[in-house]
Amino acid sequence: MPTKIISDLQKERLLYEPKMPNVLKGDLSRLGLKKINKNVHNSQQDVINKLFPNTSNLPYVVFEQGENEPDPSCSQKVNIGVVLSGGQAPGGHNVISGMFDAIKEFNSGSNLIGFLGGPYGLLTGESREITKDMIDSYRNTGGFDMIGSGRTKIDTDEQFAMVQKVLEDKEIKGLVIVGGDDSNTNAGILAEYLKSKGSDISVVGVPKTIDGDLKGENIPVSFGFDTATKVYADLVGNIQRDALSARKYWHFIKLMGRSASHVTLEVALQTRPNLVLISEEVEKKNMTLSQVVDIILDTVTRRFEKGYDFGVALIPEGIIEFIPEVKKLISDINEILVENNEKFHHFHNKDEKIDFINDNLSISSSLLYQSLPNDIKDELILDRDPHGNVQVSKIETEKLLIELLRKRLNFLKSSGEYKGKFSFQTHFLGYEGRSGFPSNFDANYCYSLGKVAFMLIQNSCTGYIASVYGKSSDISTWQCGGVPINSMITIERRHGKEKPVIKKALVDLEGKPFAALVEHREKWAFENQYHFPGAIQYFGPEELTDRIPKSLALES
Amino acid sequence: MPTKIISDLQKERLLYEPKMPNVLKGDLSRLGLKKINKNVHNSQQDVINKLFPNTSNLPYVVFEQGENEPDPSCSQKVNIGVVLSGGQAPGGHNVISGMFDAIKEFNSGSNLIGFLGGPYGLLTGESREITKDMIDSYRNTGGFDMIGSGRTKIDTDEQFAMVQKVLEDKEIKGLVIVGGDDSNTNAGILAEYLKSKGSDISVVGVPKTIDGDLKGENIPVSFGFDTATKVYADLVGNIQRDALSARKYWHFIKLMGRSASHVTLEVALQTRPNLVLISEEVEKKNMTLSQVVDIILDTVTRRFEKGYDFGVALIPEGIIEFIPEVKKLISDINEILVENNEKFHHFHNKDEKIDFINDNLSISSSLLYQSLPNDIKDELILDRDPHGNVQVSKIETEKLLIELLRKRLNFLKSSGEYKGKFSFQTHFLGYEGRSGFPSNFDANYCYSLGKVAFMLIQNSCTGYIASVYGKSSDISTWQCGGVPINSMITIERRHGKEKPVIKKALVDLEGKPFAALVEHREKWAFENQYHFPGAIQYFGPEELTDRIPKSLALES
Repeated sequence: MPTKIISDLQKERLLYEPKMPNVLKGDLSRLGLKKINKNVHNSQQDVINKLFPNTSNLPYVVFEQGENEPDPSCSQKVNIGVVLSGGQAPGGHNVISGMFDAIKEFNSGSNLIGFLGGPYGLLTGESREITKDMIDSYRNTGGFDMIGSGRTKIDTDEQFAMVQKVLEDKEIKGLVIVGGDDSNTNAGILAEYLKSKGSDISVVGVPKTIDGDLKGENIPVSFGFDTATKVYADLVGNIQRDALSARKYWHFIKLMGRSASHVTLEVALQTRPNLVLISEEVEKKNMTLSQVVDIILDTVTRRFEKGYDFGVALIPEGIIEFIPEVKKLISDINEILVENNEKFHHFHNKDEKIDFINDNLSISSSLLYQSLPNDIKDELILDRDPHGNVQVSKIETEKLLIELLRKRLNFLKSSGEYKGKFSFQTHFLGYEGRSGFPSNFDANYCYSLGKVAFMLIQNSCTGYIASVYGKSSDISTWQCGGVPINSMITIERRHGKEKPVIKKALVDLEGKPFAALVEHREKWAFENQYHFPGAIQYFGPEELTDRIPKSLALES
Repeated sequence: MPTKIISDLQKERLLYEPKMPNVLKGDLSRLGLKKINKNVHNSQQDVINKLFPNTSNLPYVVFEQGENEPDPSCSQKVNIGVVLSGGQAPGGHNVISGMFDAIKEFNSGSNLIGFLGGPYGLLTGESREITKDMIDSYRNTGGFDMIGSGRTKIDTDEQFAMVQKVLEDKEIKGLVIVGGDDSNTNAGILAEYLKSKGSDISVVGVPKTIDGDLKGENIPVSFGFDTATKVYADLVGNIQRDALSARKYWHFIKLMGRSASHVTLEVALQTRPNLVLISEEVEKKNMTLSQVVDIILDTVTRRFEKGYDFGVALIPEGIIEFIPEVKKLISDINEILVENNEKFHHFHNKDEKIDFINDNLSISSSLLYQSLPNDIKDELILDRDPHGNVQVSKIETEKLLIELLRKRLNFLKSSGEYKGKFSFQTHFLGYEGRSGFPSNFDANYCYSLGKVAFMLIQNSCTGYIASVYGKSSDISTWQCGGVPINSMITIERRHGKEKPVIKKALVDLEGKPFAALVEHREKWAFENQYHFPGAIQYFGPEELTDRIPKSLALES
């Protein structure tokens, strides 16, 4: 439901016309589709071929401007479905707008059907026809509230059959699934399923996640990443300016994103803080928790020597899961908890539970566990998820690191080696960045993704992720096409079964964005070269409004 | 030190030319000064006259455009001092820029001296001449880092004597103190002190605080309030959009500002959340902690009945200090702690301490204390400030309210009266808003305040707060002048002494901004009329870039 009274910015943004790649600017019905066969060397290709007999070894496809005679079948009235899956990312409404405009360009009688509340709507058929009035009140806005979203997983044959029935009942020609790695994997499996049942319904994915961990060849970035990192970078810049002015606090800022550190890296490149932890580096170097704390300690004490008893540190939300010994500790505790579930419930108090865990851990895990602050010891065994496992996301990582750091600092203080105060503040930047008005980049990118997703369906492509890609910051030069989902699939063994997954793209420690951090971080640590990007701008000079993510610019 | 490589937005903002009241646009040396005697009915006038024999009963002053012949003495070379006091507020650098430009307009050989690190610099004389290069690299930027800030209080005669010596050594004609209620009070006392010593040095205050609790006649708002509330409103809007899309969390957002709820009220008017607590209302209605929780409970359960198992609540940081029974509990605990300081240190563990407190509290306070969650019980007695008092600012208010709420909800669940899930997220918005790039409003307002502060000194006014005021959103129509600090002073008895203070301006429960909240809050609670203001814009349509605070617009 559109908000009745809208803000001045929203009024302006509703009128914004997204920029597009040149190839999308002409008559869409004259676009040609070029197939590009790539030799993908995938050692798992045999397994993939077996799991996807009908949709494996698909070519990459690219749209080309041309003088093709429009295929008359193109202008037939069709129904197209769209569903938003998982957490919000700025730009979702623009994917839908792009689809809508492209669909109506072919035939104003065609319909766009939005499935409500995420994948659950695909199972129940709960949906709504998307009208021009709806679209016009959601263009370039944040959030997924136009049709809602959800986290229901659709990955069993029974569920696929339900979806097929829903799609057939509504006479849907193609379905666009907007989601992250899991949702796009399942889009691929659904595409295979439908093919195997002789259905002509196309399934196309759109790469969404503010975490930035869904990318690959011809998929330069997932949408939402740009806006989210700009929102965070604005706030980090503000906090840096506060730190620099007050000169009395260390600010520890945890940034959303458990599986990869792209967000932290991008925000760091935009703001130049004093300390940046990158989970992938910690894991690669096989660092212990104690070594991670050492890095912080070193920066804090050396900054103090320079007269700076303040600073700003960025911490990726998922870091402790990347510390090998902590990962092992968590898995050890999980094993003990699950094996001794019954027994565990009979303990009378916390201390008995803690002792029991301690007694059953391996020596190395036990030593690590004992070294943890009491709060964290509690969190590790008391907050358990419905399967009885440790709730890793609830562990207050930044507090853990700070507690361990303070112990060290107090020790150094007592021996006179450190005379600073070390006052700190903690922050978590997360939800603020998921639903803001999309930046111009995300607005443009998503609008084009929507158009391309529909064009793939028009060309009977199924099992593809919509692809809009290029190297320049000028989107008009970008290309459009589709990436076969299967080209991104790897096989993991889970619970004894072979499970296809799109592997999350981690920070590439050999890549240019990380290299830029490594090159500058010593200087940033001790010279206060803070950068203040400020709030996202929608008007004014293009270098301000149309800036692409720094990591993307470096990769290009 | 200017940041060497600056962001694109910073480059643009350095070039922004603040808008000004018409009266400041012409030749400043021709401005006339009109005195306006107001009959202030202050029952404490006698005491004030006694404390301020040389500076009481000053008239309000207003600058008038005129054809005055410039006073030749006006173009003499002078030294002017400026100091930033207390927490950052966006616009501080513009106060300094405005001063600088006005000073140089009169005589390019005049100097602006910035005292470093806040009032402490006034005691030590640590200072720096502010050059054009410095100014040009700080125009329209956030933070106080150009000369730093601090919280040293200057309020004893001994300190005043030190300041006088520093000012005389540097041949300073006038000093501008940029600060909140305390700093402006002390500016008034310093002005009186200097007068009493026969000094001609002027002292002028500038009203700063993001909390918005320093205002009065001809002082419509303190600077920084507009930017901070716009930063928070952007984020609250984003979180609302997230809540509306995900439909699974209640977001409790605590907003900075312990002494008054202006920030919360303003952000609420900009965003229309489901629940807004206003400390002043809670106090006025003499509500108990339990009644405050009832309000939240009522909104949560009634929203659930409507199908909304999510929502957004705004909570002012200082609310628990406004709940009369909690205020009493804290003061009771403080008394016990201070009286039994020795004894208290000998207890072996937390439980003994808690029992001791409990045994010594009045029945009503003890009942309240017992009703609190354990974490909060601990926080109340374990975290003590250097004077042994409860550290109220460390009490996690939002968690306290949520814990108590959950107890009630669980009770209602067990009886089947409530079937919702109540999952929640907490947020604290504070530091993010203190040091951002000032909004156009703050940039314009501060630049003018700076010019006016200098003009007051040029006119030998001392003991004044710079005043830039008007009713329209068009600052060109605003007026400029000075408000006698003493007109804002009231006398409080502290530690048996009569202490002059500028009373913090609380939210006026009879005022139009609060009335607007009351009028709409029932609708906002249950109809999801969320408003999404988006990020502060510096380019584009004026209604977007030059918006004044909603509470200010309502008051006009």
